Amino acid sequence: MPLTDAPEKLSLFRLEDWSAQQLAQIEQALNCWVAVAADASAAATQSVGLASLSQAMRYAVLDGGKRLRPLLVLAACEAVNGNSHAGLRAACAVELIHAYSLVHDDMPCMDNDVLRRGKPTVHVKFGEAQALLAGDALQALAFEFLTPDDAQPDVFDVAIQARLCRMLAQAAGHQGMAGGQAIDLASVGLRLTAVQLHEMHRLKTGALLQASVMMGASCGAASLPVQAALRDYGEAVGLAFQVVDDILDATADSATLGKTAGKDAAQDKPTFVSLMGLAASRSYAQELLARALASLDTVQACGLDNTAALRALADMLVNRHH
Amino acid sequence: MPLTDAPEKLSLFRLEDWSAQQLAQIEQALNCWVAVAADASAAATQSVGLASLSQAMRYAVLDGGKRLRPLLVLAACEAVNGNSHAGLRAACAVELIHAYSLVHDDMPCMDNDVLRRGKPTVHVKFGEAQALLAGDALQALAFEFLTPDDAQPDVFDVAIQARLCRMLAQAAGHQGMAGGQAIDLASVGLRLTAVQLHEMHRLKTGALLQASVMMGASCGAASLPVQAALRDYGEAVGLAFQVVDDILDATADSATLGKTAGKDAAQDKPTFVSLMGLAASRSYAQELLARALASLDTVQACGLDNTAALRALADMLVNRHH
Repeated sequence: MPLTDAPEKLSLFRLEDWSAQQLAQIEQALNCWVAVAADASAAATQSVGLASLSQAMRYAVLDGGKRLRPLLVLAACEAVNGNSHAGLRAACAVELIHAYSLVHDDMPCMDNDVLRRGKPTVHVKFGEAQALLAGDALQALAFEFLTPDDAQPDVFDVAIQARLCRMLAQAAGHQGMAGGQAIDLASVGLRLTAVQLHEMHRLKTGALLQASVMMGASCGAASLPVQAALRDYGEAVGLAFQVVDDILDATADSATLGKTAGKDAAQDKPTFVSLMGLAASRSYAQELLARALASLDTVQACGLDNTAALRALADMLVNRHH
Repeated sequence: MPLTDAPEKLSLFRLEDWSAQQLAQIEQALNCWVAVAADASAAATQSVGLASLSQAMRYAVLDGGKRLRPLLVLAACEAVNGNSHAGLRAACAVELIHAYSLVHDDMPCMDNDVLRRGKPTVHVKFGEAQALLAGDALQALAFEFLTPDDAQPDVFDVAIQARLCRMLAQAAGHQGMAGGQAIDLASVGLRLTAVQLHEMHRLKTGALLQASVMMGASCGAASLPVQAALRDYGEAVGLAFQVVDDILDATADSATLGKTAGKDAAQDKPTFVSLMGLAASRSYAQELLARALASLDTVQACGLDNTAALRALADMLVNRHH
């Protein structure tokens, strides 16, 4: 009776506890992997250039982010009983891509942001050239994370390695995040249709959020119906994330957000709020949450009843205040 | 008698013919793969942003480069009788990484170059933000190239896919190309020791050149001695390339080079010529060529006698005039 059991399971599940446990291993892995690699080569060459590149990379990654994408990877991996070594590496790789995109996005030729999470952005602290290189190196490092060799204790199946690389490359590239940013650049001051606004966000933030879910699912042997349901969940959650971001940008203050509020309106960027209004945006977000949860009912109907973390993450993501 | 046969084989081998044949398939593949992917998504969204990102990516890649790295991949793949589908994808992936590095390197916050191969650089033509994104998207696309799925007619073994991703990520990242560029940034105006200069170039240009050879070799099942010999060949060739670059920068004119000559001296960058003088640099380049060719003797002694292209490429690379 997996379906009738579910509500009880959910009520016993505490997202704070689960997240704390997952975050501990994510932070430890990032701290260890980004550090060791960089320090080892810096020591070998005694080069000031490498040491400062390594510092910029660590600064960009180990900055107290919410780690939403890695949590989605681990929750999806858990839902399909996936390989936990693969899950942890995939979680960290997705976060490296997210971190590099923030570094490049903040640069003067893009959004020209000087603060992120209350701290100077990477180019303010290390200079533009180092920020550019640190972003580039973080993207490469993401793919290095996904392809451990036999010498590493947490090596996993090469079929999973290749699949994770493919999914991450597609989600990060011109048909994913980078493509969405290009649309974003071109759309400032324009009045987008609802279809165009959805398309921009599907690529800009949605692709990597959805890939987080699908990469987690790829660490196991999910059946096709489960894969399809998790793809729907990832799409709904990815879109809801952006709708809620737009709502918060229009309603919360900068201190709560930890970044400049009202920026989209000030920059005349199209948002869900500017397109459909605040009330309609709020009900749209709830509708997307319902869609995400319904997809997980399908996953459970396929016999996988370990979806509590995915449920709680979707709920947290839509009902967050910052 | 593979060793006594070799000189005769070499004399029958014409690099121009071999290169023309390989370049035809490299250009066709790049033209087809960079185009199709970008155009398909641009059409789907009817977005001006995606179309211009795609144009910037094509402009950066389809620019009449020498394609030295792809040729090294294909020559090494041929030497080990490797999988030709994997070889062609690896060749194109390496070129995408090279192309993205030039785009980012030319940007105002780095070398601030306005001309490359006689044409405006990407940021001059498309703006800095598009150049940044195009470079980022090209790096992601490289890893997409390496991981075709079953739906693609040229799919190949996932073990090779994972290995190629690992090698490319390592060569491109902080312990490879990006790391070398960071050292380069930090070394302007400094007097480097010979060890430091070697280390900078080993990472900045050598890592990707060596990876080209090793990725080609990874498309087949090379024995450990063959792998070691090809690693030596790649290291010698990678270093020789930079030594010759420094010699040409100090001796050739801009028209012959197709880029600004004398730039290193003008920018007070340390070079092999400034460190060891012109005559010593020239004999060092010949010494490295001899080392590369000797490594190929080892490869032939292991029973692989298809090294003519690797020999001719090393010779061309050291004795080139631009």
